[in-house]
Amino acid sequence: MSLAVVASRNDVPTIEIDADRLLADMRALADFGKVGSGVHRRALGSVDMQARGWLADRMRAAGLTVEMDGVGNVIGRTPHARRILIGSHTDTVPNGGWLDGAMGVIYGLELARAFMAAGGGGEIGLEIVSFSDEEGCFAALLGSHSFVGEMDREAMLDRVNEDGVRLADTLKAVGLADKAAARFDPAVHPAYLEAHIEQGPVLEAKGLPIGIVTTIVGVRGWKISFHGQADHAGTTPMAMRLDAGAALCDFAVRIAAFCRRESGAHTVWNGGDIRLTPGAHNVVPERADYIFSFRDPSAALLDRIAQEVERLSSVVAAEHGVTSEAEQIFAMAPAAMDETLIGLMRDAAQAEGAPSLDMPSGAGHDAMVLARHVPTGMLFIPSIAGRSHHVAEDSAPEDIVTGARVMARALTALCRTIALP
Amino acid sequence: MSLAVVASRNDVPTIEIDADRLLADMRALADFGKVGSGVHRRALGSVDMQARGWLADRMRAAGLTVEMDGVGNVIGRTPHARRILIGSHTDTVPNGGWLDGAMGVIYGLELARAFMAAGGGGEIGLEIVSFSDEEGCFAALLGSHSFVGEMDREAMLDRVNEDGVRLADTLKAVGLADKAAARFDPAVHPAYLEAHIEQGPVLEAKGLPIGIVTTIVGVRGWKISFHGQADHAGTTPMAMRLDAGAALCDFAVRIAAFCRRESGAHTVWNGGDIRLTPGAHNVVPERADYIFSFRDPSAALLDRIAQEVERLSSVVAAEHGVTSEAEQIFAMAPAAMDETLIGLMRDAAQAEGAPSLDMPSGAGHDAMVLARHVPTGMLFIPSIAGRSHHVAEDSAPEDIVTGARVMARALTALCRTIALP
Repeated sequence: MSLAVVASRNDVPTIEIDADRLLADMRALADFGKVGSGVHRRALGSVDMQARGWLADRMRAAGLTVEMDGVGNVIGRTPHARRILIGSHTDTVPNGGWLDGAMGVIYGLELARAFMAAGGGGEIGLEIVSFSDEEGCFAALLGSHSFVGEMDREAMLDRVNEDGVRLADTLKAVGLADKAAARFDPAVHPAYLEAHIEQGPVLEAKGLPIGIVTTIVGVRGWKISFHGQADHAGTTPMAMRLDAGAALCDFAVRIAAFCRRESGAHTVWNGGDIRLTPGAHNVVPERADYIFSFRDPSAALLDRIAQEVERLSSVVAAEHGVTSEAEQIFAMAPAAMDETLIGLMRDAAQAEGAPSLDMPSGAGHDAMVLARHVPTGMLFIPSIAGRSHHVAEDSAPEDIVTGARVMARALTALCRTIALP
Repeated sequence: MSLAVVASRNDVPTIEIDADRLLADMRALADFGKVGSGVHRRALGSVDMQARGWLADRMRAAGLTVEMDGVGNVIGRTPHARRILIGSHTDTVPNGGWLDGAMGVIYGLELARAFMAAGGGGEIGLEIVSFSDEEGCFAALLGSHSFVGEMDREAMLDRVNEDGVRLADTLKAVGLADKAAARFDPAVHPAYLEAHIEQGPVLEAKGLPIGIVTTIVGVRGWKISFHGQADHAGTTPMAMRLDAGAALCDFAVRIAAFCRRESGAHTVWNGGDIRLTPGAHNVVPERADYIFSFRDPSAALLDRIAQEVERLSSVVAAEHGVTSEAEQIFAMAPAAMDETLIGLMRDAAQAEGAPSLDMPSGAGHDAMVLARHVPTGMLFIPSIAGRSHHVAEDSAPEDIVTGARVMARALTALCRTIALP
């Protein structure tokens, strides 16, 4: 099922972005919380709030009506009863990059500004959103979860940030405690578009300026713990050891071999966190903890790997004479993007002379949350050296501009053809 | 080559220990730094110095001439020109066990006391030593290294303990800075005997009260580091990753398989220390550090494993597209015990009705250092559940007494038959 379209309406203006204005605003936003070439702007902190205030001013200057809602979402609306949502987020990880979510928000600002400057005609308008706390200072994707009504606000208010400050107290301090949460409404919002840097090396490696996201992959995280016995590494014969660390390494090699054998074209996995207890070279490890995560566009394949994690951890533990526990510690379902929006962006890229690649997103985004409620499309531009969440994160200015032009074309086509709710 | 013996001399008394006095002294010593059922007595700290003072008093009461030397070695001598060395150490690891080295020192005290009480006749006497800092508060085996003249005292004075205090300042504070180092002299000391708890599970598992050490195994420690690249664990395709953690686990499994295949009866190995950088579940490990240690009585086998560590780490790194470094970070040569002393202890155990096992020591001891200079013998008694270096460390009182009786018989035989220097 994909977004319904109608014959083209000719009362919708052609949206044409101003590249210099776009880049200037992006750089202006990057000054809030500047750390070298990067940005440190933790959600709802003072720097983040200054950036939100600046963004609200820029939206107003573009002719939008602005609201900052009860969780810090900044929303600028054109004066239409029905509006296409465009957004991302302006908060960052600690010492993060200057683009990340900020690029997609400024794309939205520029698109709305261009749309309004071109008359803002037609029955469909735009609603630009900077979602709060995508990076999980209090809770990952906080703003988009709130926006689609998937958040238990009361429970969320007790969450604390890295400084140990509760969300409730933070919202009070920044004057948002008594504000309502802005809400998605299917009668008002027919589609959501998000642009983002790829955060990976694929587009750069292929020399392509545009990625069109087909699916945001699902992810599962498992914690596998092996329990053996701490013994003196010199005096205990090998046959009498219960070595949790050896079991972990064996499991890591064998689950990777399974994933390699069973994987689809886009399956990825990682074992980035290994902890041995006591972790001393002269003591046999009594406990070994491993976090194994894996991602794929297919929930069925994720299920199959999860089953193998459980099965293999028991088998390996038994072979090593130790015990094991395996527990899922996080999971997000894959989110498919809308076929109509994929097609519009593909056509737009082609018309712009920008070769594009259909690809999954290996990272999570606000689009993942929105896609459960509204037809959603997502566009990527290349990340230099695939880097992100780091002050070295960057993209070529011409790629940034190309991405915005493709978005403008796709948005124009969408406004002209979308069946109104 | 082993210790020369002569026809039996009949002017040497039969040494018979007093079991209650032995155990009482052992428990009295355990009160210094008592932590639950264990002991915390770090070398040259105030509690350790109080324990050394107590020991010196007990030695004097036994009729010995006592010296505390320039590194804290406590030495009690019978009035003979030539003396068999008997000792171990009374310092402990942090929150260690009550026996460990202390048992061997109190054995020495009791043997000397019994010898003197029996007249102390003959041309050969005893020299009881509590070596300083065996556990490496400043440097492992400090006291025995000093005693055999293998220590660079000037270099050693700059070593610091876990509180950051220099050895030089510590020695000054406890009044030892200006004292000379007592020294081993081949013209004076024809043999060294040490008793110790096994610190492993072998004797208990076999139901044997006495272990006779044939060799203190050699040990090698290698640090193997793999260097890859940190990447987003979601957005980086598997084929583009340089995963240092995966290389480490692969290496760990394959070096263990090699050791299993090539090992001798007493080979042991351990990989107790794994560190991934950055160590986050959602980042591909950019660096992985592994400490791999292995022990065997044969230096040739240790060499063969060391060669494989170097070879395999390069092979595995190349297969994973990462780079590696492998460096030896510690090494101790195997130390063979003296055949004559082994035979005397074996005979003594048999005469005592205590079945014994010839076995290597998987842990290092002062005997390892002494054995390079003087014929050395070492006796083990069982450790309950193989535990040591922990407050739960313990041995059955009857095993403690049996060990001392075997030592007494062996020592009597040694004094009667040893060829005097």
